[in-house]
Order: sequence, then structure tokens, then C-alpha cells
Amino acid sequence: MKAGNRQNLEYIFNPRAVAVIGASQGDDFAQALMRTKIRDNLFLVNPKHKELLGKNCYASILDIEDAIDYAIIAVPASAVPKVLGECIRKGVKAAHVFSAGFSETGLEERKRLEDEVKETVKGKIRLIGPNCMGIYCPKSGLSFSADASTEEGTVGIISQSGTFAELFASTGKMRNIKLSKAISYGNAIDLDCPDFLEYLAQDPETEVIALYMEGTRNGRRLKSELGKAARKKPVVVLKGGITRHGSRAASSHTGSLAGSAETWSALFRQTGVLQVDNYDELVDTVLALTCSPLPSGKGVSIITHSGGFSVIETDLCVKAGLEVPQFGEQTIRELRKIVPTAGTGVGNPLDAWPIYYDMPGMPGTLSDAIRIIALDKNIHSLVLHFDELRYLKRALGEALDDHLKNLINVMINGCEYARDTIGKPVMICVSVDAYSEDEEDRRYHLMAKKAFESKRFPVYPSLNASTKALFNLYRYGRRFRDQ
Amino acid sequence: MKAGNRQNLEYIFNPRAVAVIGASQGDDFAQALMRTKIRDNLFLVNPKHKELLGKNCYASILDIEDAIDYAIIAVPASAVPKVLGECIRKGVKAAHVFSAGFSETGLEERKRLEDEVKETVKGKIRLIGPNCMGIYCPKSGLSFSADASTEEGTVGIISQSGTFAELFASTGKMRNIKLSKAISYGNAIDLDCPDFLEYLAQDPETEVIALYMEGTRNGRRLKSELGKAARKKPVVVLKGGITRHGSRAASSHTGSLAGSAETWSALFRQTGVLQVDNYDELVDTVLALTCSPLPSGKGVSIITHSGGFSVIETDLCVKAGLEVPQFGEQTIRELRKIVPTAGTGVGNPLDAWPIYYDMPGMPGTLSDAIRIIALDKNIHSLVLHFDELRYLKRALGEALDDHLKNLINVMINGCEYARDTIGKPVMICVSVDAYSEDEEDRRYHLMAKKAFESKRFPVYPSLNASTKALFNLYRYGRRFRDQ
Repeated sequence: MKAGNRQNLEYIFNPRAVAVIGASQGDDFAQALMRTKIRDNLFLVNPKHKELLGKNCYASILDIEDAIDYAIIAVPASAVPKVLGECIRKGVKAAHVFSAGFSETGLEERKRLEDEVKETVKGKIRLIGPNCMGIYCPKSGLSFSADASTEEGTVGIISQSGTFAELFASTGKMRNIKLSKAISYGNAIDLDCPDFLEYLAQDPETEVIALYMEGTRNGRRLKSELGKAARKKPVVVLKGGITRHGSRAASSHTGSLAGSAETWSALFRQTGVLQVDNYDELVDTVLALTCSPLPSGKGVSIITHSGGFSVIETDLCVKAGLEVPQFGEQTIRELRKIVPTAGTGVGNPLDAWPIYYDMPGMPGTLSDAIRIIALDKNIHSLVLHFDELRYLKRALGEALDDHLKNLINVMINGCEYARDTIGKPVMICVSVDAYSEDEEDRRYHLMAKKAFESKRFPVYPSLNASTKALFNLYRYGRRFRDQ
Repeated sequence: MKAGNRQNLEYIFNPRAVAVIGASQGDDFAQALMRTKIRDNLFLVNPKHKELLGKNCYASILDIEDAIDYAIIAVPASAVPKVLGECIRKGVKAAHVFSAGFSETGLEERKRLEDEVKETVKGKIRLIGPNCMGIYCPKSGLSFSADASTEEGTVGIISQSGTFAELFASTGKMRNIKLSKAISYGNAIDLDCPDFLEYLAQDPETEVIALYMEGTRNGRRLKSELGKAARKKPVVVLKGGITRHGSRAASSHTGSLAGSAETWSALFRQTGVLQVDNYDELVDTVLALTCSPLPSGKGVSIITHSGGFSVIETDLCVKAGLEVPQFGEQTIRELRKIVPTAGTGVGNPLDAWPIYYDMPGMPGTLSDAIRIIALDKNIHSLVLHFDELRYLKRALGEALDDHLKNLINVMINGCEYARDTIGKPVMICVSVDAYSEDEEDRRYHLMAKKAFESKRFPVYPSLNASTKALFNLYRYGRRFRDQ
């Protein structure tokens, strides 16, 4: 990055005043910004309106008296060069071009229009886009969607695709992933992925970087910035277009040259970046990296309630790259003291349903069991799969509510010991079917989910999700152990 | 199966009278059966009670005057031989032993107890179990869970694990999979997986067989029955214990010898059985097999709304084993007539968001687009990913409700043409995050899901799920094409 660029990027994430050019009544950007602290330093521009959303509306950015740091441009593609010219005359530091209809259409005249935009901005203003959603930064109030959270977090996402960045922000709200910054950079005719990587690597508010990309115009610089960023903080990447047909789709989406899957994987391996396979794995892995210690080995203990599923879950874990070793002898001896014999096992996975119930004379709790397992040397991390609710409901009837609240505290107590005292990762799995309409069931599962989240445990809707994320924690940790 | 056995199995699925031995107030079996038509031919046995659930309770099965075809035994393991002896004297045709605490504990004296049970029943009564949930058959009213649906369906599931069978029935309720029979057979000291396979293969009410198994005691017979069943109807299997650690877990769960993953995969390939990788894939594949035609090739068209996700979704499809080929020239020409240019593509995936809206002057609908694609020779199946709701909501405000109802009908209209007139599979994907608490969003997504289900389309919560199921449809169809 040239000297001075970092400061220009500061204007992008923390602008003192923002203009939306081409603002309209149903405009997502104007509506989103009216909900944040930007509101008071927001200027709307559209010659068709005198007033919009209760604000004065200007015919041109040149009519605004205040200085403008950042402009969001949402006008038809053909009008973009003229509007950018006005932004430059106005002294705007950076512009985000939302408008689509450039090289991504594959049409020659649209490619020429993009070249014209490129010439217009060169050295005069920094540009994000075109064909993208721009910036979300809850700290300054910048936003690309009225639905986006206003809570500040520690994850920065850089995405070539706007829908992707937006969906990630929206998924984050449900999955307890809070963002520092989100960047959708589209056709990248000026600022490109490496610029944003460099910025987020140095950004003290960003602890984990998530990345979605389809291609690059400057492989050497990308490699250098990936390496630099990954030395400072975890970088997780999903590369789109790694199959032949996917690569064709990518080329029609952002005009990127996608390169071979092997070339990309080698690049990510060499730079220490964690590559993931799909969107869910990206979300799941980022969540784990925001709040979990790293495991010091592959050995996992699964704490579950069903013999049948313990077999399937063990297979899942091993297929993900982990191990589910037998407990040491002392662990088995200690567990046998607190788990009744019939219909249970004190092996790994631990399939000890009776300790989910308050039965008379039970010599130990689920917390005790978790603590015993946490001390086992073969075990480097724990996965607690809470899937006992159906059975508790049948057995306890109206006593369920109190019992469950207590049980959740008991589980959290054991998990905090394992994570905070012993230093082993604990992944929580609370399964709810996406299509479930059993509202009581949903309410109790969400209660458990939120209780674990409030203690900063990563919570997953399926065991598959939690084990893939755990394996990625292991892969990430291995870098440091092998040095 | 020996002559006469088929008739004994008829007594199991369609008993004229049923006894629950060891019935109690909180008993799942007694409670479940009291909710079905079995109620009037149900007899409860427990010397500790005179009356239970409003019914007379007998001290012994021998005290019942009526003939009993089928007994469910839920007494402590040590009492099982005595109780079975009484069932034999009573002339009971078949018994299901729910009680656990036999060979699966790994204890020598429990293994001897199991041998004693085996000797007791030999040639005198057919036995299911021990250590299992037994039978669910909505037609006759047999059930293992008060939550289970009373609706009759076409899927038969055979599972070594009780939790598995029960969860499958419960998932089925949410995913529009209706069962003909579910069988949990546990330690299988008498009736084993091949017996139930033989029965379901001949059962006119069962059109698709799902199977969860951890091992077998008679590989030759299993192979023969798998082959016979798979020649009659689709058989989908999940094999538990295919990894080293999973196999150890399986051995402590049901005492099975698990064998190597390769041996099992070869067995399934040779017998024409579809092996799947995990529970979700089993559910997703069975759903597709109950209601979809088979694709005649690998070419898929994805109909989506987002450029960014169309790349990722193409990669997912190709990684699953399918192809996302470019449309033929005529298809592109026809689509261009109805899809506006800016910000859209008329390639495959089709990323044509404007046709989700009623915009003035739009020359065609989403139904028209689906019909055009269905006629393309490169395309053998369609995946419709309905994920436009967030955008529709923002754009339409209060008009959303009417618009969406209409849009769903428009989509169904196109999909029915593709499936029913042209004969190509159409998979529907309606994404809802399991943890979403946006109730309006959930309600609309569930409305779409149910509308498609009511027209017998398979609906999936993620594109990944739908493409894996579609690839399995392709694998299944290939068997017939290659003959």
C-alpha cells in the first residue's frame, strides 16, 4: 500500500460525513444509515427530490456545504463517471460504487465504461467496487443493510460478493459472531482484497479475518498480504470457483480469473491461511476462533446421551480428521463411581444419560463427569452434545423448566472448568431442526444455546458443524506447535 | 427365512392383542399405545399395580384371558428369562425385549444372561432385542413413542439403534417423510436385520427402505437379503462404526463386529444398496426417493438469486458429483427475452432476481424461466433455491404477504411443468437458520416449505442437502440405465 493509503482507508471506515448519491425513498443505504450514528452527518443527493426520509435532499454533491469524506454512489452505471467527477471536485476521499452493469455483464461496451471509471478515479479518489455492497462498520455506523446489527465485534470479513458479506453479517446475528468490519469489494477496479487485508491485519478491533474471494488481479501482492495478515491473526478463507463449472460462474459474476483449485490451496497453505470448504464451515470456524482456546492434540471426548448416535458421532469426528481415543484407566474408574451401569457406557463417547436426571442417590453430576474427562491426558478437547431434551420432557413433565435451568448451570460449571482451569476447548452442540415447529422445544433449545453463548462458548446446531470447526482449531494451532 | 416366519412377522407388525409387561405410570410404551387404535386390545402387566392409565393391570401375563400375539417386555434384565417363559406358556407369538443390561455392557455375567434368554426362546417364540425400542407401525397402531406420528407412509426404517429409529421418526415429521414401519432391533439374538429386510422387501406398504446398522452376525444372509430387497425397491444404508474409533464405540454399543469400511462399502455396492455418509444425508436421500423422478444425467440447473452464492453453490454441486453445464443457445435466447440485463446473468446458475418481483413491463415470470430451463437438453434436473425473502421484504413492505403467496404459486407452476410434463427432478431449497428467532421470517419460509410439500416436492433446508440427495438419486438411477 502506498504511503497515505492507510489514512484514506481510515476515511472509508470512519468517515466524518457521508453522502448517498442517487438516494431514494426505498433506498437500503439511506435507510440503514438513518438508523445509526452516521444519521447526523449524512447527506442525501438526488435531483428528483427536495426532501427524503425527513432530510434535505441535494441536486448534486457540489451543492453540499460541509466537507464529505465518503460517498455511496447508487446511480445507473452510465451516470457513474460524471458523478465520480463531481465527487473529485468536491474533495471526497473515497467512494463506494454500488451500481452494477460494468465488466461483470460480459458486454464490451460495459467493459469500456468500467475502463472510463478507472481512468476518472486514478490517483484522485479511492474507489470501492463497482458492483458491490461496500462497507459495514458498527463502530462508526456505516452499514449496508437496515437489518445489520449495531453491536461491535472482533471479526472482519472481506468479500468479493455483496450477498455473501450481507448474509455473513445476518448469520452472525443468529450465531453470536459480532463484526468489527465487513467489506464487499465487487469488481475491485481500485481498492482490492489485498488493500483490505492489509488494513484489517493492522486494525486493533479485528481479531479474526474471514475472506470470500473468487479471484485476483495481482497474485503476488495477494500472497504477500495474506502471509502478513496470517502472521498477526487467524485468517479463514472460502475460495469460490474452485471447480470447473464454479470457475465459469465466477467469471460471469465478477469477471475474475479463478485459477486452478490446487494453485489456490497451495497459496493458502504457504501463507498460513485456513481454507474451508463451504459457507457453513466458514461461519463455524470463525465462531470457534473468536472464543476458544486451541487444542493441543487430536483427541476429542464426545459427551452425548445415546449409544446409537455415539457411534455415528465418533465416525463423524474421525472423518473430520480428529480422534476419539479411549479414556485412561483412572478416568474410567472415576466415571464408574458416578454413572450407573444399566444402559450406559463410561467409554468415549460418554453415553451416560442417567446423569442428566436428578435421581435419588446419584453420586455425581454431569459437571463432575465433565471435570473428570477434562483431566484425561488422552483428551485434548471436549464436545458436549446436548440432545437430551426430548427425554427430559417425557420424564419430568412440568418439572422440566426448573430442572433444565439447573442442568444448564451444571453443564456450564463443568465446561468452564475444562476450558478456563484446564485450558481445553469445549464445543457445545445444541441441535434444533431448522423446520421444527415445536415451539416449546425451540424455546428450551434456544435457552440452552444462549446460556452457553453468554459464557462465550461456541454453540453449533449439529455435531458435524462443531467437529469441523474443532478440526480447524486444531489445524490452526498446529502451525504454532510445529514451529 | 424359514417357512412360517413371514406369518410370525405379520403378528409383530399387526398383532391382534398386545401386552406391556413391566408397565408403569411414566411408561413410554403404555402411554404411546394408549394413544393409538391398539388401546382397545392393550393389556398391562405389573404385579405392583391393580390399575394403570385407567386400565386393569394384571400380575402376570398368564392372568389375561384373551389371546396375546405380541408382548413388550420392560422389566429388569435379570427377570427377562422368567417373563419370557410365561409368554411362551401363554402362546405369545413374538416378544420385544426393551430391557438393556445384556452383552452390550461387556460384562461376562450379562453375556451369560443373554445366552440364557437365547436358549429360552429358541423355536418357541420370536424375539426382537434385547436392548431396543422395538416396532412402530402407524397402520396397526404399534408405537415406541408418544410423540410419533399416527400418519401412515411409505418408508420403512430398520435400525440397530433405538435412538436412531426414534429420531428418524421424529425428523420425518418435520421433513415430510411418513413411515410405514420402523424397527429397532438392538442386540438381535433372534430376529436380525436380514429378517426385517426380507419382510420390508415384500411389504406392499413400504416403497423405500432406510437402514442403520453397526454390524452383523451373518454376513452371507445379510448380503443375500440386501440384494433381494434392493432389486425390489430403493435401499439406503448408513453404516455406523466405519472408522477405527467408531468401530470400538459400536462394539460397546451393540456388541457388533464392525468389519472394515472397505468390506462394507463393497458389500453395499455389490448388492445395489445406496450407502450414505451421515444421518442428514440418509434423511435427505430417503425424502428424495419417496417423491422424485430420477435424473437421466448429471446436468443440474441452479435457480438462485445471488451472483456470489451462485458460484459457491456451483462448487457444492460439482463437489457432490454433479455438473452445472452452460445452457444451450436457445435457452439463453429465450431467457434473455424475460430477464432484464443489469445485475443479472442468464447463465447457469440462473441469477435473475428481478423476476422475483412484479415490476411494470416485465415480459415473463419465474414460472416462464423454469419452463425454459426444463426444456434444455443439457439440464437433467433443477434445484430451485428460494432465498429471496429478505430482499422481497425490504422492497415490498406490507405488500409482501400477497406477493409471496402469488410468487409461490408461480414457482410451483413452473416446477410442476418441469417434473410432471418434462419428467425432470426438481429439488426445492428453502433456507432457514436453525437458530433464527425472526418469527415473521420463519413463518414465511415455513409457508413456502409447506406449499411445495403439499405438491410432493422434496424440500431441503440447505443447498448442500439438496445436491447430495440429488446426486444419490442420480446414482440410484444409473443402476437401471447401465443395465
